[in-house]
Amino acid sequence: MKLIARHSDVTVSEMAVILNSDDALKLGVDHTDRVRVTGDSSTICAVVITDSIVEPGKAIFPSQIMERCGIEDGEEFLIEYSPMPESVRSIRSKINGRKLNGQEIRSIVKDILDGGLSSKEILSFVSAFNVNNADLEEVADLTRAMADTGSMVDFGSERILDFHSLGGIPGNKITPIVVSIVASQSLIIPKLSSRAISSACGTSDFVDTFCDVELDTESLRAAVKKTGGVFACGNDDYAPVGSIIIDAERPMGIDPRPMMLASIMSKKVALGTTHLLIDIPMGKGAKIPDMETAEGFAKDLIGLGRILGVRIECAVTYADQPLGHMIGPTLEAKECISMLETGDTECAVLDKACGMAGIILEMAGMENGRARAEGAITSGRAHEKFLQIVEAQNGSHDLKSNDLSPGSFVKDVHAKRDGFVQYIDNASMVAIAKGAGAPEDLGAGIEILHEKGDRVKEGDVLFRIYAENQAKLDRSVESARSRRPMLVTKDPVDTAPQCMILKRIYERSEQ
Amino acid sequence: MKLIARHSDVTVSEMAVILNSDDALKLGVDHTDRVRVTGDSSTICAVVITDSIVEPGKAIFPSQIMERCGIEDGEEFLIEYSPMPESVRSIRSKINGRKLNGQEIRSIVKDILDGGLSSKEILSFVSAFNVNNADLEEVADLTRAMADTGSMVDFGSERILDFHSLGGIPGNKITPIVVSIVASQSLIIPKLSSRAISSACGTSDFVDTFCDVELDTESLRAAVKKTGGVFACGNDDYAPVGSIIIDAERPMGIDPRPMMLASIMSKKVALGTTHLLIDIPMGKGAKIPDMETAEGFAKDLIGLGRILGVRIECAVTYADQPLGHMIGPTLEAKECISMLETGDTECAVLDKACGMAGIILEMAGMENGRARAEGAITSGRAHEKFLQIVEAQNGSHDLKSNDLSPGSFVKDVHAKRDGFVQYIDNASMVAIAKGAGAPEDLGAGIEILHEKGDRVKEGDVLFRIYAENQAKLDRSVESARSRRPMLVTKDPVDTAPQCMILKRIYERSEQ
Repeated sequence: MKLIARHSDVTVSEMAVILNSDDALKLGVDHTDRVRVTGDSSTICAVVITDSIVEPGKAIFPSQIMERCGIEDGEEFLIEYSPMPESVRSIRSKINGRKLNGQEIRSIVKDILDGGLSSKEILSFVSAFNVNNADLEEVADLTRAMADTGSMVDFGSERILDFHSLGGIPGNKITPIVVSIVASQSLIIPKLSSRAISSACGTSDFVDTFCDVELDTESLRAAVKKTGGVFACGNDDYAPVGSIIIDAERPMGIDPRPMMLASIMSKKVALGTTHLLIDIPMGKGAKIPDMETAEGFAKDLIGLGRILGVRIECAVTYADQPLGHMIGPTLEAKECISMLETGDTECAVLDKACGMAGIILEMAGMENGRARAEGAITSGRAHEKFLQIVEAQNGSHDLKSNDLSPGSFVKDVHAKRDGFVQYIDNASMVAIAKGAGAPEDLGAGIEILHEKGDRVKEGDVLFRIYAENQAKLDRSVESARSRRPMLVTKDPVDTAPQCMILKRIYERSEQ
Repeated sequence: MKLIARHSDVTVSEMAVILNSDDALKLGVDHTDRVRVTGDSSTICAVVITDSIVEPGKAIFPSQIMERCGIEDGEEFLIEYSPMPESVRSIRSKINGRKLNGQEIRSIVKDILDGGLSSKEILSFVSAFNVNNADLEEVADLTRAMADTGSMVDFGSERILDFHSLGGIPGNKITPIVVSIVASQSLIIPKLSSRAISSACGTSDFVDTFCDVELDTESLRAAVKKTGGVFACGNDDYAPVGSIIIDAERPMGIDPRPMMLASIMSKKVALGTTHLLIDIPMGKGAKIPDMETAEGFAKDLIGLGRILGVRIECAVTYADQPLGHMIGPTLEAKECISMLETGDTECAVLDKACGMAGIILEMAGMENGRARAEGAITSGRAHEKFLQIVEAQNGSHDLKSNDLSPGSFVKDVHAKRDGFVQYIDNASMVAIAKGAGAPEDLGAGIEILHEKGDRVKEGDVLFRIYAENQAKLDRSVESARSRRPMLVTKDPVDTAPQCMILKRIYERSEQ
């Protein structure tokens, strides 16, 4: 059947087409049935909604379908009945508690990518694919199937190092430092990061302020060949099905552990990672609240790595307060670069960076990893490598932290009494930085002038808000007033631990 | 905010309201956010869809919302922002593998009933509430919470007997017979059945051809008081939330075991059932394919009953072919009544009915249940009780099987060779009967003239199709031709077992 297309912003069922009931009858379909829609560029599957608001002979589409199929508003297109895909049967089996084999999982992933499954079906799959109903072999099959949906890169090396943070700690700006230390030891570390989803600043958001982060596969390979490392953005070239799954999860705000594991590992498999360090930030505001949860996660990760042929270690890190002093794109970039310039390995940012890099060096077979990592910082070798990588990503080799300036609308928040900083609340700091405009406004963010446990006097500046205009500064100040980002009372309190890495978890024996 | 209502048949997201983007902005909501909608009769929650097809100041609704709220087309109504209910957090916890407590489960069920959860959220809950991720205590909590959403009946007796079939076997017309036998022994058995969902005829569909099945709670209590038993329709007075959950499951065609258990038991809890026999039809075409699956199901059912204080036994029954000779409302009614008239306890229908009734009598403390049940049939006491119940349900006490006539458009299907009936395919028989118009056309259906293992000659009638008009008869014949409902080859084959009850499963000791 041929119908005229009409665009609509309906977004609840993103792969849906709304038809007049008479047209649906002629086509032999009912609502929730599936149709194949063919435009100039491709054919995809969509779910039928029948509704009297559509005139006969016409069909209403969300833009997503029109773009993917190459259908213009008002244009004719082909629509045909499509039977239910086999993968729906596999999802039902999963809901009924049966273990899925690799072929079934591949077919689910393929249908998700091709638009053959509705967001409802994807959500149903994710909900059933939970920690009690999916084992590591299934997660490994899902990982491989997801990796197969995009480009696979061969860096031509037998040892590809990488690391990944589960996230949840604001100001975690160590990625360019860790990459620079590791690459300065003539090792290969093609690190892809993401932009902020719910946080105030992702690694790619702050790196983007001083060099390119969107590298295609060719540029990525060239940069890695030249310098040994990158700190680029992991875009949809690699395991692109992941972002479709995340879109389906979003309405429920879920990300079950097996799905999270597969999402992380699919990008690593696509890049041929052989050795991977996972940062598990643990603390009140972080995703992982306690050591028991952290160890459960680490066990699953290491076991999954064993099946996939990736050697994995985990580092549980301190995440009770933001890392370092700065939050927000320009501010984090500034702090990150100044760390490499000054090389004070005692401060929290470099302590964590050297600790993480040290583990990676030891995974690559070197001894005394941490001492080597600190040596790379104090000798300036890491800084030089950093500038090489920046240049390879089309930034300036002469980049200095002072080149970067945050927003000029500034407001200080003062201590109202003498006392000790009881805590710094991660979630509040993120909300205040986002209120100021981060991460979209590059200059927006927060500078935190005191840490947990510090003694402060009435009137001391606790933190400073930066914004790019007065309205957002006001909004952010308002947000700070309605929260308790930093509490000062007269009771002395423990400070942050000496070492940011609380525990290193690895497989003790080959079983 | 006040908007003008407009009706629409959109059914994918049944609890959705479509707003113009500008109105949504004014209201402070985005798509997938939640709003409270208030009409003349009530307030419910709905999910927002924003779309340019809606004019500013107006809102498009599915009829379900308009009816429940008491909003007329073109009328003004109140719409307000509604925060995400706490129950969404509980569903997320379930997806993350955490055990839910009774309070959390009650709040989920309450929000489902009140329309506070979208069909997507319900589907996500059902998908996560699967056999590996929900234990019997959670199922028991869900059962009680579902029962609490509707009427609870107190029949004023300490012992309320009941039975239930998991379904999947066409022609399973034993319910009025079992009820009549048990009630003839001065026991209480208020049996509520359902109409067909995907089958050709539910118990209520064929009972409806000779007496009322829709009884309100008062009539139900009165009928049970008078006769001891009923065979009525279990409508939405009892555990009404069940049908909302089924609607949410339907697009995925799922019914995970924990959800199925809770659905079954919630109606029983609402009726105060103390002793329950579950029929588990087992066979190639049935829901339960083998004894291992049947035993797993029985174990869960009996365990759930123990938590709920209901004594449960299970009977695994033969379901490799339809039960008896007739499929379809009038035909099944006819066969059911004629069984009581003739009293041939050797045939499959009475064998199963007496077997089931016998177990129920023994559960009620009587000895030699099966012999007693057969006695009730041969003595005519069960038949007399049946007619009393029919009368209590506003039917005729003089009802005879010959009063009922199937459709007059008839087509015989003949054997094409000499040989033996290899099998009778349940799914094909259901499809053919539905093709003929069952269950909507009461006279439509099939009469099967031979059983599995029977020796037949070329030209013998294998089965006969009945319809109420020629078009549906033709459609049904066409459906029969494209399938293999009964295969005849020259190889002799095993016949059905002597006894329809293959195994009785009960708890051996009180632990």
